Amino acid sequence: MQARHSGDTSSGKRIVISVDAMGGDRGPAAVVDGMAASAKKNPEIGFIVHGPRAELEPLIEKRKLGSRCEIRDAERVVAMGDKPSHVMRQGKGTSMWSAIEAVRGGDAQAVVSCGNTGALMALSMVRLRKLEGVNRPAIACLWPSRNPGGFNVMLDVGADIRADQDDLLQFALMGTSYARNGLGLERPRVGLLNVGTEEHKGRAELKVAHDLMADAAPAGQFDFVGFVEGGDIPSDRVDVIVTDGFTGNVALKTGEGTAGLIRDLLGEAFRYTPLSRVAALLALTSLKRLQKRIDPRRVNGGVFLGLNGTVVKSHGSADATGFSAAIKLAYRLAESGFNQRLAARVASAGAHRQDTATETSGESR
Amino acid sequence: MQARHSGDTSSGKRIVISVDAMGGDRGPAAVVDGMAASAKKNPEIGFIVHGPRAELEPLIEKRKLGSRCEIRDAERVVAMGDKPSHVMRQGKGTSMWSAIEAVRGGDAQAVVSCGNTGALMALSMVRLRKLEGVNRPAIACLWPSRNPGGFNVMLDVGADIRADQDDLLQFALMGTSYARNGLGLERPRVGLLNVGTEEHKGRAELKVAHDLMADAAPAGQFDFVGFVEGGDIPSDRVDVIVTDGFTGNVALKTGEGTAGLIRDLLGEAFRYTPLSRVAALLALTSLKRLQKRIDPRRVNGGVFLGLNGTVVKSHGSADATGFSAAIKLAYRLAESGFNQRLAARVASAGAHRQDTATETSGESR
Repeated sequence: MQARHSGDTSSGKRIVISVDAMGGDRGPAAVVDGMAASAKKNPEIGFIVHGPRAELEPLIEKRKLGSRCEIRDAERVVAMGDKPSHVMRQGKGTSMWSAIEAVRGGDAQAVVSCGNTGALMALSMVRLRKLEGVNRPAIACLWPSRNPGGFNVMLDVGADIRADQDDLLQFALMGTSYARNGLGLERPRVGLLNVGTEEHKGRAELKVAHDLMADAAPAGQFDFVGFVEGGDIPSDRVDVIVTDGFTGNVALKTGEGTAGLIRDLLGEAFRYTPLSRVAALLALTSLKRLQKRIDPRRVNGGVFLGLNGTVVKSHGSADATGFSAAIKLAYRLAESGFNQRLAARVASAGAHRQDTATETSGESR
Repeated sequence: MQARHSGDTSSGKRIVISVDAMGGDRGPAAVVDGMAASAKKNPEIGFIVHGPRAELEPLIEKRKLGSRCEIRDAERVVAMGDKPSHVMRQGKGTSMWSAIEAVRGGDAQAVVSCGNTGALMALSMVRLRKLEGVNRPAIACLWPSRNPGGFNVMLDVGADIRADQDDLLQFALMGTSYARNGLGLERPRVGLLNVGTEEHKGRAELKVAHDLMADAAPAGQFDFVGFVEGGDIPSDRVDVIVTDGFTGNVALKTGEGTAGLIRDLLGEAFRYTPLSRVAALLALTSLKRLQKRIDPRRVNGGVFLGLNGTVVKSHGSADATGFSAAIKLAYRLAESGFNQRLAARVASAGAHRQDTATETSGESR
């Protein structure tokens, strides 16, 4: 459903994706199956895959990926329960560390992992480092919506638990760049999440961020639609929803939880009587159509924005279809030169803000 | 679906609900229709209804509510766009003001309004005042869930945009009292909303609130389940979800928006082909069963907790069925003597905390 990006891409050249094969709930077999699905659809893709060689080699051979795929042996695995601070200090030798290093060294253009989110963010921060001018990186997710493309972008959904007014402005710029390169939207509409659209509602820093975004919109080539509410997240009045990582994470999980409840209740409703079971059989195609439209596996992949390298976090419970979707997203972003574009955008906005002397914070500028 | 509360109620005595007939999207006719539906089901209920007499009298007569219903003439109406601060100063003579006064004066046991939420909260604060010992009142909503009763309680969903650790503890106590009297749960399970269940995640004040709630659980007669995430809001591992009003409001509207999107996509899926339209006809009963289970009209009614009087906020777009649900909730709370019980609970917790010398903040204690 997403139009292929039509920018000045490096088409024809092989794009290499670095894959952390370990740490997912379904183990490395699901990951390698996802790689195989992507390789089949896309002749330009190559892989560097990280994990215990003895475990990976038979999987790669079985899927006949040998010619497209280099294995980098990494015996250690980051577990779901590991603390990010611990992984940051002790993570060397893990498949996650190795996968990030391949991007850091320039051997791959993007990394995909379905491991522990906190650890992946922490390791990515330490090894790839923040982009010049970025204070607080963010995780952006895709959200099923009423828009023609089928998805909106929301950030931050959990890289950090706070964000001040300057961070929120940067999220708007980074989200714009992501929507343009990831979803093919020329001029994304950006909204700032708040509890009401009236001017007298909401937190003080949100009012300041509101004005900063309105000012930055013309130069940033996005349309600022002002405050949006939770109900607007899946709507067609906005493409990019900006919020802090605490609120964004709660909203994301609330949306997932609500969709899950409705899916289960729908199933119950159709199992209620023998007649409704017959109806369910007849309705199967329609229900599958709905399922496909909101299938979380199709929107799999949170992207870390604001680092020197593209990092895609696949869902921990992703199956082959889900992991393949995450690889597709990583490929698309790598192909469009997304990270260089994002860096240029943040740098020019930083310069612009310095020019206009509104610079108030600037830890890393 | 909710078991009738079996406490020491004032059964047999008429319970009077004060109704603000104005300010809803569908006008006073829908409100009076909702009153008629409630009156029909419940012979013990009486009403004082507020608004322009000339407009209300024919509606009341048409529904034959004359013997059950007193009209209090109020010419002015609070509009949806009115600022709460303005209504606080200039609200005298509005139907909303008049409706609250009837509870303040003891003529009615609870008030129901579908007007402007901010104005209703502000007026209720000023006229009814906060309960002794309550620092920050909260709005509690019912959320469709996997629990046997069908609903969970979440608070605060928008009374205020912030809450510190002591406020969150009070929300836990008030939510417990509401779940006991409103949903008939003897020993509610309370969870604190956060972005992760691991000990190293989340905001500092949430960690403190976590420990305060764990300490207060035995005396407060609730079970503290610790941190919960957005995905747990509709789950069956918790009955009461505690959070600040900003996060709660975003979560509530995100849930509503997600449910709305799925409902629309389900409709689309069933209109897709002639065959799917036939399937939809056969599936109609099942789909209606689902619709009934998550019908927002059935869970209509945010309750303001922490004031000297029970205030139920009906949805602005509520129809007669929705408004009748809000009246039912108000009746149920009035009948159970909820507000006196809540006051006693907060007071005893305050005394307990003073005893244990952990009292740190206390604007109104």
